[in-house]
Amino acid sequence: MDYLQLPESITEKSTPGGQILAESKQRSSSDNINSPQTSDNTCIPKDFSCIYNKDLLPALSGEDTTKDFFQELVNILLSYVCKSFRRSSKVLDFHHPHQLREGLEGFSLELPDQPENLEQLLVDCRDTLKYGVKTGHPRFFNQLSSGLDVIGLAGEWLTSTANTNMFTYEVSPVFILMEEVLLRKMQEIVGWSEEEGDGVFCPGGTMSNLYSVLLARYHFFPEVKTKGMTALPRLILFTSAHSHYSVKKSAAVLGIGSENVVVVKCNDRGKMIPAELESSIITAKDQGCVPFYVNATAGTTVYGAFDPLNAIADICESHGLWLHVDAAWGGGLLMSKRHRVKLQGIERAWSVTWNPHKMMGAPLQCSAILVKKRGLLKDCNQMCAEYLFQTDKHYDTSYDTGDKTIQCGRHVDVFKLWLMWKAKGSEGFGSQVNKCLENAEHLFDKLKQRPDFELVFKSKPEHSNVCFWYIPPSLRNMPPGPERNRRLHEVAPKIKAKMMEQGMAMIGYQPLGDKVNFFRCVFSNPATQTEDVDYLLEEIASLGHDMQNASGLRPICESGLRPLYESDCGSD
Amino acid sequence: MDYLQLPESITEKSTPGGQILAESKQRSSSDNINSPQTSDNTCIPKDFSCIYNKDLLPALSGEDTTKDFFQELVNILLSYVCKSFRRSSKVLDFHHPHQLREGLEGFSLELPDQPENLEQLLVDCRDTLKYGVKTGHPRFFNQLSSGLDVIGLAGEWLTSTANTNMFTYEVSPVFILMEEVLLRKMQEIVGWSEEEGDGVFCPGGTMSNLYSVLLARYHFFPEVKTKGMTALPRLILFTSAHSHYSVKKSAAVLGIGSENVVVVKCNDRGKMIPAELESSIITAKDQGCVPFYVNATAGTTVYGAFDPLNAIADICESHGLWLHVDAAWGGGLLMSKRHRVKLQGIERAWSVTWNPHKMMGAPLQCSAILVKKRGLLKDCNQMCAEYLFQTDKHYDTSYDTGDKTIQCGRHVDVFKLWLMWKAKGSEGFGSQVNKCLENAEHLFDKLKQRPDFELVFKSKPEHSNVCFWYIPPSLRNMPPGPERNRRLHEVAPKIKAKMMEQGMAMIGYQPLGDKVNFFRCVFSNPATQTEDVDYLLEEIASLGHDMQNASGLRPICESGLRPLYESDCGSD
Repeated sequence: MDYLQLPESITEKSTPGGQILAESKQRSSSDNINSPQTSDNTCIPKDFSCIYNKDLLPALSGEDTTKDFFQELVNILLSYVCKSFRRSSKVLDFHHPHQLREGLEGFSLELPDQPENLEQLLVDCRDTLKYGVKTGHPRFFNQLSSGLDVIGLAGEWLTSTANTNMFTYEVSPVFILMEEVLLRKMQEIVGWSEEEGDGVFCPGGTMSNLYSVLLARYHFFPEVKTKGMTALPRLILFTSAHSHYSVKKSAAVLGIGSENVVVVKCNDRGKMIPAELESSIITAKDQGCVPFYVNATAGTTVYGAFDPLNAIADICESHGLWLHVDAAWGGGLLMSKRHRVKLQGIERAWSVTWNPHKMMGAPLQCSAILVKKRGLLKDCNQMCAEYLFQTDKHYDTSYDTGDKTIQCGRHVDVFKLWLMWKAKGSEGFGSQVNKCLENAEHLFDKLKQRPDFELVFKSKPEHSNVCFWYIPPSLRNMPPGPERNRRLHEVAPKIKAKMMEQGMAMIGYQPLGDKVNFFRCVFSNPATQTEDVDYLLEEIASLGHDMQNASGLRPICESGLRPLYESDCGSD
Repeated sequence: MDYLQLPESITEKSTPGGQILAESKQRSSSDNINSPQTSDNTCIPKDFSCIYNKDLLPALSGEDTTKDFFQELVNILLSYVCKSFRRSSKVLDFHHPHQLREGLEGFSLELPDQPENLEQLLVDCRDTLKYGVKTGHPRFFNQLSSGLDVIGLAGEWLTSTANTNMFTYEVSPVFILMEEVLLRKMQEIVGWSEEEGDGVFCPGGTMSNLYSVLLARYHFFPEVKTKGMTALPRLILFTSAHSHYSVKKSAAVLGIGSENVVVVKCNDRGKMIPAELESSIITAKDQGCVPFYVNATAGTTVYGAFDPLNAIADICESHGLWLHVDAAWGGGLLMSKRHRVKLQGIERAWSVTWNPHKMMGAPLQCSAILVKKRGLLKDCNQMCAEYLFQTDKHYDTSYDTGDKTIQCGRHVDVFKLWLMWKAKGSEGFGSQVNKCLENAEHLFDKLKQRPDFELVFKSKPEHSNVCFWYIPPSLRNMPPGPERNRRLHEVAPKIKAKMMEQGMAMIGYQPLGDKVNFFRCVFSNPATQTEDVDYLLEEIASLGHDMQNASGLRPICESGLRPLYESDCGSD
């Protein structure tokens, strides 16, 4: 008997919507298909209500109980995984913070003094998943990271079972070498020669970008490590108006100061304008400041725009500046023969941020900072703490990576990506990227045809980002202007709120520059099909239309003074 | 039939030592106890050699194959978990980097262009665990983080299945609230009032310490965020000679400069001397510098020493300095009624680092920075990027934590700790800590009695660290002095190398100040029993003694010029 095989009648039971069911108070017998069966063939779940943590390993004879407990847990988790991919499941079952805080039907977040039994823990596990968000659902379009790669998930389960640290070779021999292999491969794909390239996996793209600024500063002013910024002239960084805010944040953290980040203008497609960069550099020099670093973005967060890397690299070369390419989001396109042309020039970067947890679908977190100049990471970060990094060990201690990082101890973020690479091959990642971009094109084509939607920019998407407004009937014939903008600004938040309450899809929105709130749809989940894209548009249109006729929305009055929507009522 | 139940004859088969077996090329049938059985009762493993990633979810009708694949994986993982706790298992099966890099018996780290089949992936998973280190083994004493908490592991499996980000409430409602509950509880345990306290979970203790310096600087000089360090006077930090190197690293990263960290002298027990701190502060002021931050350590890395927090807090108060307590290692003792007295005064700290992944046994990583002043984290780090953090959402957006962190997106490190807390209760953590410290006392008592070992300091351990030398027979009657030191310095590395090759236990060593290489044993694994402590001492003594009589070690010659050990041979 296959323990993971749920009877069809039970697995296909759709998740109950909105309301909270008493069911969540006990594991349903359907989660326990490997339990003893009664004569009428119903399952009796194994009862863990008298079993406690103390009965599990390392307790003597704890093996069986531990295995039984994991069996139940795995049933719950795999049931969740299967549900995540089913379109009949909800993406989320939304509750406000105060509702969850107060405890829902016995799901209490409070921490006890005394142990609770394992039955309660299993119920808590089910509730934790129930009230969360299925980021792997084919209709979750909310973040750059989405999808649930099952091989990546298998990799994470192994990683946590191994429970070690990317600190020294002696405690992580296999993972340290996998990191080396992965980084080398990524450097090769970026286009660096065999003599070039170093790097490290980091806790997220912001940290990777922070590394790049840190390394650039050290490269030009190595004395900063010991003497600090007071020994240095006023340093200036450049990044585009559409770039990620982490460049500014890095400047603040590193003691450079966010005001010393010059924000370079973009064209209407969200790409940095090289001439603007050059004139900003010259202006900064004229003011007696010292430009040292330019961040170019390959795949901006909102528009998915690619900065013109070669033109920017030319400018960096002529002024002797460090070129960083933030390809956190766009790096995945390097895997696609069809799309990698959009990152032409990336090989000229001095450092690259690339997050496989975004476009390549690796589970969170998986982000690399790649550095062209070998040895710089170590020189910049090492503190030679011999009480932590002994040099008289019997193996090649250059594999002890702890001292070349900021973090010292690091989570193992490499195994899942390594295993996924084995499972898909480089070509599999390429196909996955192509598919996501095809979904974006499909959405773009649909939007062009519909009168109830408006594109934020008319050109074909370069990445998988598609930005658009839903235009309610009442606004369709209104002339452009501040009043229309004021009203349009309120549409996306209201639709998103309704969508989250219904729970059948999820998408993000934001304002940007002079553009009022618009939806940004992104595709990074290979589970998403064109039918899901179509569903999303219908859902938005239907929610927007319904609101118009419901109490939440009144027809626009002549005076233009009444808000488009009434303010939220308590339950909204 | 219980799918996780391995037949006793197979589960108890001890791991073959040293040599690499062809067995690792295929999953052994013992991993597949749920597979069909032949008439002679041997199991036939399900064959995945024609099944690929493309056959798994989200493939249509991929549910069954996905479940089958996870079944095999879980068998491998739980077999590893059980082995980790068995004393008959090896802690590690050591290979040098070049050996693993070259590929062992088909375990190739290289990344393919084409997909590999799932059978190969399962073999790779088994090999990854085989060549790794069992950090949960009762005889792994190498790191401050050890043990394999099975409830924590369950929490990690769920976390990776949920695959979300501590970024906004909308994508992590449950985890965001669990973080709040955990932080509040930890602040309460530290001793802060209900009006005080903020914090965030970070990727490791070094990052937590970096946060503390960042916040202190911002607290006194908020203009640093925009203007950078050049707007500030020369800032000085203070930390003890035995503190973690992350304080210096933070100063380097943040642009303060590592030379501006004043290293305060410790007594021979490794505790900061308050009078030395005070005079260092006065000296710095006299030199026109601006002291602003003191790091006190509660549980140093090597000695496990606790700085006198109240005396240091008095000095900080009188000089108006930020007091940070690095309780990454010692924080766990707050859970024990018996031992929490060692952290008396911690409630006076302005910020506290506390790593539940160390003494509380949470899986890696789990580290908190606690901050007394509410709102400071947000003020210091927020960049108000409205394209990421919309303020017009329909829920209370103060729960969107992304903007108060450095990292923006963050891994979910809270669920495992939350689940462990439910499983053990606060009292369970207390008992666990007590047990680890009892093991340390047991080791201390044993060492006092033995002529072949020497304690680094004679007083009873305060934490679970016990530091000692093994004294080979040839050194026992040698007078103290440089020559004895030179020889003694080589003993621990040689013994550790042999120990790693044999693989039955693992312990760290390091020099510190004027002390030559000594062993540091630490206890944070509740699976460790006194018999394991006894085993460790016998193992060290036996390896030390054997080496003396083997080719690796020659008797000391009169001239004192010949090294104690021959240099490593190729295979060593």
